[in-house]
Amino acid sequence: MAVRFEQIQDCQQTNARLGRLHTPHGTIETPIFMPVGTLATVKTMSPEELKAIGSQIILANTYHLYLRPGHEIVREAGGLHTFMNWNRPILTDSGGFQVFSLSKLRKITEEGVSFRSHLSGEPLFLGPEQAMEIQNALGSDIAMAFDECAPYPADREYVRQSAERTVRWLKRCKEAHQRTDSQALFGIVQGGMYPDLRVENAKAIVDLDLPGYAIGGLSVGESKEQMYEMISHTTPYLPKDKPRYLMGVGSPDALIRGVMLGIDMFDCVLPTRIARNGTAMTSQGRLVVKKAEYARDFTSLDPECDCYTCTKYTRAYIRHLVKADETFGLRLISYHNLHFLLQLMTKVREAIRNKQLPEFANRFLTQYYGSDELSVRF
Amino acid sequence: MAVRFEQIQDCQQTNARLGRLHTPHGTIETPIFMPVGTLATVKTMSPEELKAIGSQIILANTYHLYLRPGHEIVREAGGLHTFMNWNRPILTDSGGFQVFSLSKLRKITEEGVSFRSHLSGEPLFLGPEQAMEIQNALGSDIAMAFDECAPYPADREYVRQSAERTVRWLKRCKEAHQRTDSQALFGIVQGGMYPDLRVENAKAIVDLDLPGYAIGGLSVGESKEQMYEMISHTTPYLPKDKPRYLMGVGSPDALIRGVMLGIDMFDCVLPTRIARNGTAMTSQGRLVVKKAEYARDFTSLDPECDCYTCTKYTRAYIRHLVKADETFGLRLISYHNLHFLLQLMTKVREAIRNKQLPEFANRFLTQYYGSDELSVRF
Ligand SMILES: [Zn+2]
Ligand SMILES: [Zn+2]
Repeated sequence: MAVRFEQIQDCQQTNARLGRLHTPHGTIETPIFMPVGTLATVKTMSPEELKAIGSQIILANTYHLYLRPGHEIVREAGGLHTFMNWNRPILTDSGGFQVFSLSKLRKITEEGVSFRSHLSGEPLFLGPEQAMEIQNALGSDIAMAFDECAPYPADREYVRQSAERTVRWLKRCKEAHQRTDSQALFGIVQGGMYPDLRVENAKAIVDLDLPGYAIGGLSVGESKEQMYEMISHTTPYLPKDKPRYLMGVGSPDALIRGVMLGIDMFDCVLPTRIARNGTAMTSQGRLVVKKAEYARDFTSLDPECDCYTCTKYTRAYIRHLVKADETFGLRLISYHNLHFLLQLMTKVREAIRNKQLPEFANRFLTQYYGSDELSVRF
Repeated sequence: MAVRFEQIQDCQQTNARLGRLHTPHGTIETPIFMPVGTLATVKTMSPEELKAIGSQIILANTYHLYLRPGHEIVREAGGLHTFMNWNRPILTDSGGFQVFSLSKLRKITEEGVSFRSHLSGEPLFLGPEQAMEIQNALGSDIAMAFDECAPYPADREYVRQSAERTVRWLKRCKEAHQRTDSQALFGIVQGGMYPDLRVENAKAIVDLDLPGYAIGGLSVGESKEQMYEMISHTTPYLPKDKPRYLMGVGSPDALIRGVMLGIDMFDCVLPTRIARNGTAMTSQGRLVVKKAEYARDFTSLDPECDCYTCTKYTRAYIRHLVKADETFGLRLISYHNLHFLLQLMTKVREAIRNKQLPEFANRFLTQYYGSDELSVRF
């Protein structure tokens, strides 16, 4: 088995758990947030900076790396870890989600998906076997199954058929997987917003006995309450001794709520994407630093933060950089935002350890969202 | 006197000199290359990285900082050093060059220059007094005089009048300067491509007894030989006990040749600008890493370089980042290019110290440009 999950402690008041995920490139303390490095780089950040802020594992993307630079080049480089100078664990998304969200003129058959590159328009094909071949070449510690993320909203019959096909695709992924010793294949539970389909799909996926399970097809436009409901319907059917990964979720409230519902791993482009709009996540909530009101604000992005950005630079300076399109501004905000979410998860783990997760969650979310919003969101 | 120049050693074979420039924010070993941080950031680089590669002093730009974020904000921040987290020396260009090269609808009078912002179109005015007020607010260690950089080509009469006005403007800069104790004002010699005007202008500028002198109006489109000729006509009239700064020049051959003609300081946007086109300066000459031939090249940008970029990343990876528009690619090349020029100047200083400058220059330039090109360029 390429990875092994060790449950350290259960939360008595919620379904949260403290764990350790052992991988070929080291051990990860869970619950964890994973920074996204789509194209073999976490936007603007160096690997050393990612380590400095405590990134234990990062994501990369099969679809994007298949298009650029091509998985054969990464294989020749010695795999993704060597290629991008990152010696800690890497998880690769399967490309399923991107084929559906980015590419044009896609056609789904039992075999896989025919589509056109969103860059060149070139006709391409990805199916379970191709997704595994690419991920085997990339050499990530955790490979994700090739799935279909059904659109939202979608009618029940479509979602049922899609989820069933995802199970058949997973079987083929498992068979095509060439590196079971050094790379763990995680299955992805689909089922749209239909609780019974979620349950049915979870059971079928878990039947295939994989080293980890993800919940996919959420955070696609539904309400947060609906998302939490779907998670609640799914996690009871996922084995306790395997890691659980909620895909594409990274807002502070969803991380905390997800942990309480039994999730161990999260990823999201949010911290680096909002940085591009000059937005920081702070202990007081979101701060749009490019607003005029910060032009002469010589305090740090987040008065409670001790990261590089917050100890060395002011809102006025960062605003200036963002307004002037200087990439160093992006660097500074990305650094802070990633640090913020990684720190949040460190505090979450500590709270589980100290049996104070609900208290911590309340305190944090009240401060982040303000008390008025809290009742809605949590 | 805010700065003091100490001449350490003369080269016996050329006019090169080894020196030390003492400033309010520390001492600079000359000859030196100064990275350009136009908008209070050297593109993509952190101050810590700039220090790691041995940047002793950086440039910032009066015109650009006047437009964004505005010098009053920088003053309120405690000056440019505090604003941008850089505690080593800073030199600010006066804005003269940018007013002429970037702004629209400019009108020159004896008083100064009326122009429109290249960003907003807003009508603005800069003259000697304004340039000094802005630079006093920025608090750089070295402020540059407000001058007119005559266009190239330009007829003799135009250049003569422009150069004479630059002298009158310099007098007004000197009078308007409010921080002579903590900020040195350098004069700028103009005179276009007319040797006698260069001599005349140099004499008039030096008569004003300033702590340092720059040669401006070069590298504006003339041939390199013509540029060297103009420098040769100017430096004999600049006092030996004051630093000499050749503005806007940064190609390796021009740096070396400039040093041999008695120049102590250089600046240029070249290393970060060519990085944006995926071009690296290496010991073997320029390398356009985004070319297809480097797609599977798993060697470093420069086999003779031991910088962060070259010890950790391959041409194949950097090419991938550049092709994918990932800013980390820009960071890696900028880092290497700046390191390359700073290292070159370290070697130049060492060669002067060891009385081997001509031998070093020949060896370096043969390798950089190839022997065929050398006869033309050096
Ligand atoms: Zn911070
Ligand atoms: Zn290098």
